[in-house]
Amino acid sequence: MKKFVNDPMNVVDEMLEGFLFVNQRYVRRASGHPRAIVRTDAPAQNRVAVITGGGSGHKPSFIGYLGRGMLDAVAVGEVFTSPPVPTILECIKASEGGKGAMLLLGNYAGDVMNFDMAAELARDEGIEVEQAIATDDVGAGFADEPEKRRGVSGELLIWKCCGAAAERGDSLADVKHIAEKVNSRTRTMGVASGPCIVPAAGKPTFVLADNEIEVGVGHHGEAGVSRELMRPVDEIVDLLAEKVISDLPFGEGDEVVTLINGLGATPLLELYIAQRRLQQNLAGRGIRIGRSLVGEFFTALEMAGFSITVMRLDEELRQLLAAPAETPYWTQV
Amino acid sequence: MKKFVNDPMNVVDEMLEGFLFVNQRYVRRASGHPRAIVRTDAPAQNRVAVITGGGSGHKPSFIGYLGRGMLDAVAVGEVFTSPPVPTILECIKASEGGKGAMLLLGNYAGDVMNFDMAAELARDEGIEVEQAIATDDVGAGFADEPEKRRGVSGELLIWKCCGAAAERGDSLADVKHIAEKVNSRTRTMGVASGPCIVPAAGKPTFVLADNEIEVGVGHHGEAGVSRELMRPVDEIVDLLAEKVISDLPFGEGDEVVTLINGLGATPLLELYIAQRRLQQNLAGRGIRIGRSLVGEFFTALEMAGFSITVMRLDEELRQLLAAPAETPYWTQV
Repeated sequence: MKKFVNDPMNVVDEMLEGFLFVNQRYVRRASGHPRAIVRTDAPAQNRVAVITGGGSGHKPSFIGYLGRGMLDAVAVGEVFTSPPVPTILECIKASEGGKGAMLLLGNYAGDVMNFDMAAELARDEGIEVEQAIATDDVGAGFADEPEKRRGVSGELLIWKCCGAAAERGDSLADVKHIAEKVNSRTRTMGVASGPCIVPAAGKPTFVLADNEIEVGVGHHGEAGVSRELMRPVDEIVDLLAEKVISDLPFGEGDEVVTLINGLGATPLLELYIAQRRLQQNLAGRGIRIGRSLVGEFFTALEMAGFSITVMRLDEELRQLLAAPAETPYWTQV
Repeated sequence: MKKFVNDPMNVVDEMLEGFLFVNQRYVRRASGHPRAIVRTDAPAQNRVAVITGGGSGHKPSFIGYLGRGMLDAVAVGEVFTSPPVPTILECIKASEGGKGAMLLLGNYAGDVMNFDMAAELARDEGIEVEQAIATDDVGAGFADEPEKRRGVSGELLIWKCCGAAAERGDSLADVKHIAEKVNSRTRTMGVASGPCIVPAAGKPTFVLADNEIEVGVGHHGEAGVSRELMRPVDEIVDLLAEKVISDLPFGEGDEVVTLINGLGATPLLELYIAQRRLQQNLAGRGIRIGRSLVGEFFTALEMAGFSITVMRLDEELRQLLAAPAETPYWTQV
């Protein structure tokens, strides 16, 4: 295993030491817990606290989006492992400032269980808490089985829109409505050409032949809907786009935001070639792209591959996406 | 070769189609040439035009830094290949607005030759042109052989500081002085644990055994100063830092900016573990870190590895680095 680490058991704490130093302008530890990371100005004043968390290894997600206009607190777990209840509870207590706490999480059994317990404990202490669970991955489960669908790159759009909604003063119920609205309008599908290695495990999450790709792969290397032969990227984009578009379904006349997310090892050069085809594909369907994002937003360590996310826009979501943000890895004026 | 491409000969043009669409708020093609990319508001009004360029495959460099406070024009070459003279000349003509053109380039034979010829041709047309050549890579040549030293990630700091200097109204001579000042105070050293594959070549740029790393590797896979056994990242950081620090040399009491640049496939998690050690290493030398950057700024396709850049700060450079910028991959308020 050729990874740039020291003791594989210490990667998260060592990473956090670097991250907190570099980004001290934006983030700090909550005093009560070394892995409850909050905005420097926590608790949230006169706005809902927007909180998320999950396993490590997805950087810049989740902690890279802490800051004005996005996230207030992030509960950091071990690599690809849900953060424990006390970490989540500390995030809530350290960032909530009287208008309530909005918990945003992906649909993974461990996260769902731990966030739920932390929410209960926070309510016992008199804090108003709501939750919303992202289920944008069409690579798992059918359209009528949202309980089987994972939360993947679409979570980024939920954080951005909820963070902007909180910043403009929305109530807890309204921020929750935004989270559910974004989730209901967003679909994602990924593809991998190579696996990643969790440091503590020391071996690849899956094995692909030299000419194979995994279509519908999850953010931790979960198996997708099919294993296919490698082919030109235009054909791969068409395959992913068809699954994504037909699932919602998106249709002629829709305006959407698209997000091409690199899973780790795939060069931006290739992501932009995929983006070109996505433009052509959507234009052919009469779907207008209002905004596009291309980059590494939600990775799976050094997995090779990418995902395509499409969200149906309306005027409110357009404004929330366009609102200012100032975080380590997403700043816009 | 498992790459997300179509025809390997078309990767640059296809990438540009995606890039120009996504980032149309910042960039456009100069009318005269499909690979001369300029800011949407070109030519530069009342300021020096800051121009660079080079081979493709280094994204977000170079075109990802076009915009307010950084670059005015970028000449785009084939993958790992210098842009031809007409492309560079078109960049100069399309972005220069009366205060002169500052050409910033890395020390590669093809770039040096082509930028020089383009500069001559532009001068023949009455445009004032200056050049500065980055030589920050201590992985090539000795300290007294700057002609052998490549320009690598330190170029990012030159672009940022020169872009900010142009924005505040500096003369062409003053912008050139900033470029030379940054270069003279900046040193970089890289390490690779895995190669990249140029699409049109279809095979790895170099081969490493399962337990080997290349110390001092260049941004195109050029051989470095030594091939070593893989070891804990703390030891690798100490090795790179020693080369970088002793070369300038940096010394006790210095304030510096550090940049840990991922070369492509190495997770941000690992880059931040390297960052942690760099903090410890510099603290032990009495060198203060004024600002740190960690991410993928100047990649080599999917090469695995990273580089460490250190620049000695003074008040002027601190201000230029802190000045606002608004580009596809570097925005700060």
